[in-house]
Amino acid sequence: MPLGERGGWERSESRYCGVETDFSDDVPSLLSFHITTGGFDYVLAPLMDPSYRPSLVEGNGLETRVLPVSGSDLVLSPSQWSSHVVGKISSWIDLDSEDEVLRMDSETTLKQEIAWATHLSLQACLLPTPKGTSCANYARCVNQILQGLTTLQLWLRVPLVKSGGGSVDATSEGLTDSWELWNSFRLLCEHDSKLSVALDVMSTLPSENSLGRWMGESVRAAILSTDSFLTNARGYPCLSKRHQKLIAGFFDHAVQVVVSGKPVHSLPKASDSNTEGTQRHPLRSYLDYVAYLFQKMEPLPEQERIELGYRDFLQAPLQPLMDNLEAQTYETFERDSIKYIQYQRAVAKALVDRVPDEKASELTTVLMVVGAGRGPLVRASLQAAEETGRKMKVYAVEKNPNAVVTLHNLVKMEGWEAIVTIISCDMRFWSATEKADILVSELLGSFGDNELSPECLDGAQRFLKPDGISIPSSYTSFIQPVTASKLYNDVKAHKDLAHFETAYVVKLHSVANLAPSQSVFTFTHPNFSTKANNQRYKKLRFNLPSDAGSALVHGFAGYFDSVLYKDVHLGIEPTTATPNMFSWFPIFFPLRKPVEVHPDSPLEVHFWRCCGSSKVWYEWSVSSPTPSPMHNTNGRSYWVGL
Amino acid sequence: MPLGERGGWERSESRYCGVETDFSDDVPSLLSFHITTGGFDYVLAPLMDPSYRPSLVEGNGLETRVLPVSGSDLVLSPSQWSSHVVGKISSWIDLDSEDEVLRMDSETTLKQEIAWATHLSLQACLLPTPKGTSCANYARCVNQILQGLTTLQLWLRVPLVKSGGGSVDATSEGLTDSWELWNSFRLLCEHDSKLSVALDVMSTLPSENSLGRWMGESVRAAILSTDSFLTNARGYPCLSKRHQKLIAGFFDHAVQVVVSGKPVHSLPKASDSNTEGTQRHPLRSYLDYVAYLFQKMEPLPEQERIELGYRDFLQAPLQPLMDNLEAQTYETFERDSIKYIQYQRAVAKALVDRVPDEKASELTTVLMVVGAGRGPLVRASLQAAEETGRKMKVYAVEKNPNAVVTLHNLVKMEGWEAIVTIISCDMRFWSATEKADILVSELLGSFGDNELSPECLDGAQRFLKPDGISIPSSYTSFIQPVTASKLYNDVKAHKDLAHFETAYVVKLHSVANLAPSQSVFTFTHPNFSTKANNQRYKKLRFNLPSDAGSALVHGFAGYFDSVLYKDVHLGIEPTTATPNMFSWFPIFFPLRKPVEVHPDSPLEVHFWRCCGSSKVWYEWSVSSPTPSPMHNTNGRSYWVGL
Repeated sequence: MPLGERGGWERSESRYCGVETDFSDDVPSLLSFHITTGGFDYVLAPLMDPSYRPSLVEGNGLETRVLPVSGSDLVLSPSQWSSHVVGKISSWIDLDSEDEVLRMDSETTLKQEIAWATHLSLQACLLPTPKGTSCANYARCVNQILQGLTTLQLWLRVPLVKSGGGSVDATSEGLTDSWELWNSFRLLCEHDSKLSVALDVMSTLPSENSLGRWMGESVRAAILSTDSFLTNARGYPCLSKRHQKLIAGFFDHAVQVVVSGKPVHSLPKASDSNTEGTQRHPLRSYLDYVAYLFQKMEPLPEQERIELGYRDFLQAPLQPLMDNLEAQTYETFERDSIKYIQYQRAVAKALVDRVPDEKASELTTVLMVVGAGRGPLVRASLQAAEETGRKMKVYAVEKNPNAVVTLHNLVKMEGWEAIVTIISCDMRFWSATEKADILVSELLGSFGDNELSPECLDGAQRFLKPDGISIPSSYTSFIQPVTASKLYNDVKAHKDLAHFETAYVVKLHSVANLAPSQSVFTFTHPNFSTKANNQRYKKLRFNLPSDAGSALVHGFAGYFDSVLYKDVHLGIEPTTATPNMFSWFPIFFPLRKPVEVHPDSPLEVHFWRCCGSSKVWYEWSVSSPTPSPMHNTNGRSYWVGL
Repeated sequence: MPLGERGGWERSESRYCGVETDFSDDVPSLLSFHITTGGFDYVLAPLMDPSYRPSLVEGNGLETRVLPVSGSDLVLSPSQWSSHVVGKISSWIDLDSEDEVLRMDSETTLKQEIAWATHLSLQACLLPTPKGTSCANYARCVNQILQGLTTLQLWLRVPLVKSGGGSVDATSEGLTDSWELWNSFRLLCEHDSKLSVALDVMSTLPSENSLGRWMGESVRAAILSTDSFLTNARGYPCLSKRHQKLIAGFFDHAVQVVVSGKPVHSLPKASDSNTEGTQRHPLRSYLDYVAYLFQKMEPLPEQERIELGYRDFLQAPLQPLMDNLEAQTYETFERDSIKYIQYQRAVAKALVDRVPDEKASELTTVLMVVGAGRGPLVRASLQAAEETGRKMKVYAVEKNPNAVVTLHNLVKMEGWEAIVTIISCDMRFWSATEKADILVSELLGSFGDNELSPECLDGAQRFLKPDGISIPSSYTSFIQPVTASKLYNDVKAHKDLAHFETAYVVKLHSVANLAPSQSVFTFTHPNFSTKANNQRYKKLRFNLPSDAGSALVHGFAGYFDSVLYKDVHLGIEPTTATPNMFSWFPIFFPLRKPVEVHPDSPLEVHFWRCCGSSKVWYEWSVSSPTPSPMHNTNGRSYWVGL
């Protein structure tokens, strides 16, 4: 029975809760007890008798014996197996043991159990935690298995530990950071998307920064031991504040909770009275508490629900200069009222600065909206004029003839014919008949300049007065390194170089931000200098927090912030983002090969904005701790057409 | 005029010697002086006036000015440009300067000079040494250029320095190791094969281990400053012993010497008398000394000359079990007399151990040659019998019907019909009529077991007496990590995964061995244990010498050593290799992504020998310092058929 049904969370995988069980050769009873009586959604159960060792089988051959599995496949229906059982691979296996017999037994058993799980169409199997610090042979065997799997997922069980978690001393750490174990294992298995993590949550948690890393990793389950629960005043199990926060984070990232262990809370008798004598599941109070945590989560805001389907989904950035936008795209962006409120505020301030109160009735400000689209910036500008009592003449310049149709209708409908002149022309090539006091544009991409606002405004500033104002007056791009295993695997699935050298627009969700973002390129408008050009180069250095432990950087999340006019800004850089604005998702620059970084070795990154005669593109590379190849040389994979 | 003409060295690129010159706008005179008068083969000359700066060109446009290059392309014939001039890119350029104007000027000039060099069809250009420790923007620009080049090679000038070279103290090193600079640069340029190194040889040399690394790198030129020469008793320039050894190593690796600098040796007048008043080139005595070093090199041995064409050439390993060898292959291997002398010694010792002198005339030893081919092991065995006076009966088992034809003729021609029985059959399936005392085979590959000797002998030992002898009685494979940029680039040129997961037979030459080899898998014969199998797993840990500095591991060189019988062995492991044997070149296991290793972080490597029902294959991976993906999972790219 799923944990909850409301607030938008009913669509999350995390609403299912499992329970870890011992081996049983009577699976139907196992399910009946834990699912029907206990209320759990599935069992995490061993598939084979734990006493089985292939090398001990008599006759040294398997011909005469059936595998000691938990009953025939017929004891449950295929859908029951698949929805109610996650296979738990024998925990005794140790593929990196010095003992060769144990090693061979482990390999044989692992392969037999996976084959059985595949036969049963299970959705997932839990792989036991590697026994030592070395896991190469285990990884080799799992990697062989992964090549043959189609639907079965493998969850590598890893304890959520990192010694030295709370301290600033970085030198003594490392070896006991279980993330390192996971990282080695998945690198050896080449980031296979069928390999995920199941984290054993302990009573002590590592530092916040260390926990944060996991939010960008492929974590499928959090195994909550009964030992990690506290006891509340009424004798019931509960979790510490930090544990609660962690579990909430897991719920938000589609991680399922599995309750594990023996009950350690003896509940007051009274509370059992309402179960009317029926047997109560010994772990029911733990499940109830997990369900309580799930249900007390804040409902998702409306906009978040709309955007659920976009989470971690790679989109090619728009090319509005080369392509014409479609009506639906205009429709979406025009609904972003916050953006137009900011523009209206900026225009209002510029109008007041331009024309003092005493001259408001005599001076007419010439305002040009370049890239007017279907007219929202024209409307915002006119509202600013009305609000400030300034006289204004508007030119609406738009290159998309389809949008111009709508624009004409708007002007007619609103009765703006006397004020607004529509120019159906590319702003770079229009011969204006007079010069503008204010140039208003919204040509910004997720990374600021990536939709070629600089080149467009360079072309348009010909018809701005020397002392004229550009709104926006400047914009800056930002990046930060992220762990984003899902995005990386989605890029990798294309199996070509081009997709690794492309920037994507993404609603980032299953992503761990590893360091605060830093500014990359800034453009200021107008810029009448003859020496100016729009090529840029920026070297950036990021330091991980000292208590974070190592992390894998799959690429960079990119944002922008724009100064519209003076103190009026607009942007999506997380620390200063304009609230409730939804026109831009962040941009994501992938790395061809993820780079492992440590708190004591800074990540050095280079970004270039390169300009050719017909296109603009970015190149990027990492030079430290290990140099990466240059990405997107000469814009071979990804570019924006002029 | 090339440095020398004999000893096999006349085929090496290293017989050409260049001279570094200043800028001249009269290139014909420059060539006349340095080549005709001086005797050098080519000049390393600037292509553009060093005072040129694009940003200083008047009118801020290049429309009105021609580039300040060294004269028109017509002053020399195309073949003169291409064979006598290596372009020297302006040494003032600094693409990683903080000064943006200098950076932009550098980029413009670099691109103009390369374009000019391409126009002239030069073979190579020398890129100046990066100015600081950071070189990302320089590398980005060079990488853009490399994409457009077809024949022009770029040589990055790098000083041959590594501070702390002679000491054992590894901690204070690193930053001043010029190899690091080269490594960053080429990683950023993604190992482009058109990018090589030109080393500036200084008067002080780093440690031997540090120099050794460069022998596996793509070094094209060694620039010898006149300052680095000593003066001999007669006043002539000469080099220290260590310098001489280094230059000899460069000659052996096709590296060209370029003499650079002002003459610092004032020669005794007397010696000039025989030039009869004509002007003598001021650097002539340096060239003469370089030529002397070239000419005093040992002539290449005959076998080395035959094998010159095989150096660093990737060959797919033989599959003698699946495929039948051709006559020519038998021919080549049968010429390797040393190999058969070792077998004869081993058989002789075994015969004497088997049959004491006093029973020599009564006991007949049954010897079976499995994989008899065209008969060389039959002959070696019969000679051993004759040498020891033992009576012998021989079965020659061979699966290749074409070889059996030759075998029949041999037996007839030699009159061995009474002693030798030919069995045309795969040894794994032959039903022998009697059992053997001695089983002789030579089924070894470069990596020992890689031609499936273990599987073949497991099949053949059915007809070996319980106390019988197998010759070989055991064999062991070895690997060592190597820098091998040429091999890596040749594998990479195939642009697929399969070639990175294949082992190759290669005559290793331009390869740096980074650590002593270590044993991998051992097989012992006969092996009658029922628990035995031929799967193997070995974890190895290599440490670089502490004074070596960092190095890039492109893969592993593999060898074997075999105990034929008691103290008679046969093998190609470098430290114990059987002299003058040429049947086996080493094997090379590439890495998909080269791994940088440091003396203070050991390289941990894993090799597996995996056995399926129809094939045997290796998997390999690196787990430290950074985990690599597993190579050749399930034998997907490379396997040996059973």
